[in-house]
Amino acid sequence: MSIKPLNIGIIGLGTVGTGLIEFLSKNEKIIFSRTERAIDILAICAKSKNKKRKINVNDFKWVEDPFDIADDKEIDVVVELIGGEEDPAKSIVEKSLLNKKHVVTANKALLSKHGHYLALLAEEQQVSLNFEAAVAGGIPIIKAIKESLSANAISKVYGVINGTCNYILTQMEKEEKEYIEVFKKAQQLGYVEKDPTLDVGGIDTAHKISLLTACAFGTRINFENVVTKGIQNVSLVDIKNAESMGYKIKLMALSSKSEDGITQEVEPCLVPKDSIFGKLEGGTNLVMVEGDCSEKTYYVGPGAGSGPTASAVAADIIDIAQGRRSSVFGINANNLKLLVNKNKDLPSSFYLRFLLVDKPGTLSQLSAILGKYQISINRMNQLYHSGKNAPVLIVTHPCSKNSLNSAIEEISKLEICINEPVVLKIEEL
Amino acid sequence: MSIKPLNIGIIGLGTVGTGLIEFLSKNEKIIFSRTERAIDILAICAKSKNKKRKINVNDFKWVEDPFDIADDKEIDVVVELIGGEEDPAKSIVEKSLLNKKHVVTANKALLSKHGHYLALLAEEQQVSLNFEAAVAGGIPIIKAIKESLSANAISKVYGVINGTCNYILTQMEKEEKEYIEVFKKAQQLGYVEKDPTLDVGGIDTAHKISLLTACAFGTRINFENVVTKGIQNVSLVDIKNAESMGYKIKLMALSSKSEDGITQEVEPCLVPKDSIFGKLEGGTNLVMVEGDCSEKTYYVGPGAGSGPTASAVAADIIDIAQGRRSSVFGINANNLKLLVNKNKDLPSSFYLRFLLVDKPGTLSQLSAILGKYQISINRMNQLYHSGKNAPVLIVTHPCSKNSLNSAIEEISKLEICINEPVVLKIEEL
Repeated sequence: MSIKPLNIGIIGLGTVGTGLIEFLSKNEKIIFSRTERAIDILAICAKSKNKKRKINVNDFKWVEDPFDIADDKEIDVVVELIGGEEDPAKSIVEKSLLNKKHVVTANKALLSKHGHYLALLAEEQQVSLNFEAAVAGGIPIIKAIKESLSANAISKVYGVINGTCNYILTQMEKEEKEYIEVFKKAQQLGYVEKDPTLDVGGIDTAHKISLLTACAFGTRINFENVVTKGIQNVSLVDIKNAESMGYKIKLMALSSKSEDGITQEVEPCLVPKDSIFGKLEGGTNLVMVEGDCSEKTYYVGPGAGSGPTASAVAADIIDIAQGRRSSVFGINANNLKLLVNKNKDLPSSFYLRFLLVDKPGTLSQLSAILGKYQISINRMNQLYHSGKNAPVLIVTHPCSKNSLNSAIEEISKLEICINEPVVLKIEEL
Repeated sequence: MSIKPLNIGIIGLGTVGTGLIEFLSKNEKIIFSRTERAIDILAICAKSKNKKRKINVNDFKWVEDPFDIADDKEIDVVVELIGGEEDPAKSIVEKSLLNKKHVVTANKALLSKHGHYLALLAEEQQVSLNFEAAVAGGIPIIKAIKESLSANAISKVYGVINGTCNYILTQMEKEEKEYIEVFKKAQQLGYVEKDPTLDVGGIDTAHKISLLTACAFGTRINFENVVTKGIQNVSLVDIKNAESMGYKIKLMALSSKSEDGITQEVEPCLVPKDSIFGKLEGGTNLVMVEGDCSEKTYYVGPGAGSGPTASAVAADIIDIAQGRRSSVFGINANNLKLLVNKNKDLPSSFYLRFLLVDKPGTLSQLSAILGKYQISINRMNQLYHSGKNAPVLIVTHPCSKNSLNSAIEEISKLEICINEPVVLKIEEL
């Protein structure tokens, strides 16, 4: 075959960028057998040339200014792997698209902020803007939703899509340690982003679910609409209590569509320990998509790491090499509907933990307030304690979250309530 | 947009065909929003027009002769859903391709026999031959392997891809019933193919793994090469014994590539009960693909049924509507390598169950033969028994399957050996 090679330029040479170069070289023959078109790395670029890397940067043309790649007439595809929601990533992607170059990116922060604008631009320019690697690493969830499930009316996309959080929660349980201790260890191991709140604050998960929402429901990205809670306040005692009731605690990304609109949430939830979500350990990611004809399909795999993420980036490049294209978010960006900020107050059960002064009348005060807000108790347990304060555990029947929040606010103002009550949603799946 | 509609003809109106018509109609708007091209059903055809169906056949143009669809100049895509490895399915697909029509099929039997020939033909004619629905129903595993994992050197594809077998094995355990009883119930419920050996004999699973093998390893379909054992001889006692040792019994499809070649096997195996395979219940399917960069990714969902299978067929049609194409088996059919019949004797552990005459010297005879063939015992257990015959359970250390087969052959000839010994592979995953 004498098809012109696909020329790519790679910007950003961290774990993913170097992994990509490694695998494009290692699997060159296999890839060529599938594409029948060579993929040539025409230029590379990163902040520092001299950083120690697994690859030899001198094997490639080094460019100091990333915009030289965006402007290079010979380059067909710009691979943006520097991350960050603003410049330089944004301008580089923008410039590349304006120059009619395809863009492959792993940048969920950028897309969750500027995805709609960039999709409009890419489609106007008739080039691809692919981002399989932005969500769930090596799991091909973007393509699954955009192409494989494209005949479905999708109702739910649920995921555990931040490996760091799932690692921390798993280790807390296994090692019987508190959050802060495990968090510090994860940080030492290099599992946590420079800004830890991206991971443990749930923001990274929120970025990702906002992208999945757009693809699943044909709506414009609306990251601001994601109600986001992190795992920083999950205590070992809650993990143990959950376990004893048949649940695990997972940081769930929950996106669902009903007649009333679309709800996007990121929060630590109790999920049945025998469910596929409950059984998920360590850094593994999992996404469930429910469609009206496909029913529930699940996608499981490594959510991060050099190889898996590079695998996704490379697949995006190969799609371009083979001329396969779909709209950036599965629907022409002009036709993506505005996602109205409408997080519906769907009833669910909650796990509540209070620390109360151990004296007569305490429980009656508590239950009076719950009753006032129509919150009905499914299980209640005053745990063993030696001091003068009693830990009290409550599992509610399905109730309104808004009512519950009002009740909790009122309870926390009571003198008998020692600590900020712990409230965790129970997701029966 | 004024793109010409994609005109399809549907041949076969069983569960999948009627499900397809139902969902193309129900989700017409959603699908159009994604494709921006109408999908029009121009003609339908099945054996009997008057069979009771969920759809009204009079809403469509009914054709008596399926070849009229294959020859219809207005039709762009022929959807073959009649099944069967030979004519009429084969000739219909052949004729359609010769007429430069795209073909979408769910027919694993046909492709596992004539897949290479039909792929050559489709690629020569520059049309698509899509078969997502042929393997694992609603799980998009064909696209995942062909496109999403295309940068990987794949080493393993393991699956539980026959829901009927997994349903039977799960029910045997749950209801503590023997195979034959559960099998009959499954038959009554309509879960079993007309020819039951297709399901319980492992043949359907073998069809499917032969397709996955071709896509994963770039080899020509070689269904004959699949070493196939069914579940008919799995006893409740084996399921219970497995359980007590921490395993479940699953009908595994195992395709793997090593330096020595490619191995394709279908057999009931003991798998760790805490593994994702071990936890799989009922009709759900699961495929694991291991790639050198993606690592292990898992795909889980309903393996059959009207909706899920129709979802896969519709996705194949939508790919055609949007002009997305890949080689039929991921690599140009001319370049698919011959899969040499080389099932390597890789060492693994085995579960053995004997029924032996309970008299002095029996175990020594048995172990002498195992020793002679270099088969080392990991665990051995003579189970409680009241009669004069003793059930003996052995778990071997990893050993050669060929040696084991020789040993078993010799043991079964002994007078002390009452029944045909039960041999099940242990797959630690």
